[in-house]
Amino acid sequence: MEFDLIEVIRSRCSVSRADVRLGIGDDAAVLSPPAGHDLAVSTDTLVAGIHFPFAVSARDLGWKALAVNLSDLAAMGATPAWALLALTLPDASRDFVAAFADGFAELAAQHGVALVGGDTTRGPLNVGVTVHGFIASGRALRRDGARPGDLVFVTGTLGDAAAGLRCLDRADARAPELFNAPADTREALVARLNRPLPRVSAGAALRDLASACIDVSDGLLADLGHIAERSGVGIELDAEALPSSSALLALFERDERLVLQAAGGDDYELAFCAAPARATEVQRDLARIGCGATRIGRVVEGERVRLFDRDGSELVFERGGWNHFG
Amino acid sequence: MEFDLIEVIRSRCSVSRADVRLGIGDDAAVLSPPAGHDLAVSTDTLVAGIHFPFAVSARDLGWKALAVNLSDLAAMGATPAWALLALTLPDASRDFVAAFADGFAELAAQHGVALVGGDTTRGPLNVGVTVHGFIASGRALRRDGARPGDLVFVTGTLGDAAAGLRCLDRADARAPELFNAPADTREALVARLNRPLPRVSAGAALRDLASACIDVSDGLLADLGHIAERSGVGIELDAEALPSSSALLALFERDERLVLQAAGGDDYELAFCAAPARATEVQRDLARIGCGATRIGRVVEGERVRLFDRDGSELVFERGGWNHFG
Repeated sequence: MEFDLIEVIRSRCSVSRADVRLGIGDDAAVLSPPAGHDLAVSTDTLVAGIHFPFAVSARDLGWKALAVNLSDLAAMGATPAWALLALTLPDASRDFVAAFADGFAELAAQHGVALVGGDTTRGPLNVGVTVHGFIASGRALRRDGARPGDLVFVTGTLGDAAAGLRCLDRADARAPELFNAPADTREALVARLNRPLPRVSAGAALRDLASACIDVSDGLLADLGHIAERSGVGIELDAEALPSSSALLALFERDERLVLQAAGGDDYELAFCAAPARATEVQRDLARIGCGATRIGRVVEGERVRLFDRDGSELVFERGGWNHFG
Repeated sequence: MEFDLIEVIRSRCSVSRADVRLGIGDDAAVLSPPAGHDLAVSTDTLVAGIHFPFAVSARDLGWKALAVNLSDLAAMGATPAWALLALTLPDASRDFVAAFADGFAELAAQHGVALVGGDTTRGPLNVGVTVHGFIASGRALRRDGARPGDLVFVTGTLGDAAAGLRCLDRADARAPELFNAPADTREALVARLNRPLPRVSAGAALRDLASACIDVSDGLLADLGHIAERSGVGIELDAEALPSSSALLALFERDERLVLQAAGGDDYELAFCAAPARATEVQRDLARIGCGATRIGRVVEGERVRLFDRDGSELVFERGGWNHFG
C-alpha cells in the first residue's frame, strides 16, 4: 500500500522550493536552511474522535492537519517552509487519501509549504504533521517574555470553532434550534472549526512587537495560562472585551458565549502580550495585513489567568457555568 | 493528560545541545542548524500490531521508535541531532510512558540526539518520530547514484530480526522447536528485532565512498529494488554471499534462512553500492569502526533485483519458498 499512496499525495502537493535538495522518495529529505536563521519545528497529531469528528470530510481533515501545525509556527513568528506527513489509515482508500491530500495541498500552496517527506501506515486513523519554518536568528516569539505592565491582545474573534462544534452536535441541548439557524451563520461557525486559518502573517508582523505569544488551540484561559506560567506573571482578562463574531452573537447568549470564547478550543487565533508603548504599532501593523486585534487584558505581578466581569468581580468557570467571586 | 506526560518524557531525555535555542515547552522548538550543512529529515511511524507485537515492552518500543528513524539518517550519511516525538496512547499510563522514554533516551544518549518537541494525545497506540541530522552540503548518500559495474555490499548480517519474530510467534510451524532453542541464540535474534542498532557510524564512513545507499527495513530485495528503480539499473545478488549470524545458522536451514535474509524486514543494516576501485577503502573504513561489510552482488544494466544460486540459476521467491529459474 505504502508507495502508491505516497504517490497520490505527492502528485497533489505541488509546491517546489529551491531549498529542498531532495524531497519525497529517499530515506530522508535533504534540506538547505537559510543562513542567519533559526529553524522553528513543531509536530501535532490529530486523532479521529478526539481532535475531529469521525464524520469530518477528508479534505477538511487534510487542511486542518496542516493548519494546526502552521498555527504553531505563526505563534513563533516563523515563516513556514517544509512539512512532513505521517498518515496512519485503517484501509488504503485512494479516494480518501486524494481528498485529504487536496485539502492539505490547498493550504500548503497558500503558504508556500513544500511536502518533503512522510510515512503512510495501516492502523487506526491518526494524522501526524511536522512543520519547519524560518526565523531570523534569535527573534522567535516565545511564551516566556511577558512582563507586568504589558497589555494582552488577541487576533480575530474567539469561540467560533467551539460554537461550530455545538452546531454539529446532535446531542446538544439546543440542537434543534442550532440546526435551524440560518445556513450562512451555521456555516461560518463550522468553517472556523474545520478550516482554521493559521495567523502566519500576523505572527510575522508581531516578531519585533510582542513580548510573548501563543496560539489559541486548547482555549484562551488554558493557553494564556502557559504564557503566565512560563513568564512567571499573572494575567487579568476583561470578559466584556473578548471579541465576538456576528455569527456567535446571533446564536449564543452572553454566558454561553463566554464559555465558548474563554474555554473553547480550536480558535487558532494568536494571543499575545506587548508593552503599552507598542500598542499603536501592534494595531497598525496588524490592520495593514487585514487582521484585527483586540486588547483583552493586562499582565500583572502574580500567577495564573483571571477573568473579570465589567463590575470588577472575578468570573470562575465551574460545572458548566460562570460563578462570580469577590 | 498531555502536560504531565510530556514532563515524564522530558525529564528522562537528558541530552542537551548548544544548537537547541528553545526546546520542549513552547509552540515550536527553535533550532540553529550549522552553517555549510544540509539538514536530513525523516519521519517514521510505528503502529501496534503492524510494526511491533502488542506484547513488546514499552522500553524496547521507545528504543525501536528512535532506532528506525536514526537508521534513515544513517542511510543518508547524516549525523543525528534532533528528534520530535508524537505519542498517541489509549490511556495515560505513567509507567508505560516512563519505560518508553527510558528506552528512547538510552539510544538518544548514544547518538547525542536531543528531544526538542513532541505531542502526546489519546487514542489507539501510535508512535511517530521525526529526526533531523546534518550532512556537509551536497554530500548526502542517495538512492539514485548506483551505476552499472558498481559492487553491492551490506553491513552486518541479514535475517536475524525476521528470525527473532519467528522465535516469538506461537503460531509458527516450528514454534515448539524454536521455543526450546538455547536461550542465548533465541535472545540474540529477538534483540535484533526489538533493539535494532542504527548504522550511524557506517553511514558517515560511507559518505564519500558509496554511490547509493539504503537501510534494510522492508527486506533486502524490496529495499535494493528502490535503489535499482531510482538509479535506473539492475542488481544481481549472490544467494550464497548473504551474511548470516551464527544464531541464524544454528536455528534455520538454508532455504528458510534465505527467505529471512532476502525478504525479512527490520534488519536496519545498510545496503549500498560502490565502484570497484573503492572496494578496499569501503572494507577498511568500515572495519575501522567495527562494522563488517559483505560483498553480495553487482549493479548491471537493466532493471529490478535478481537473486542467483551458486550454480547460476535465478532464485525466485514464490508461495513461501524458492523456485529455480533458468
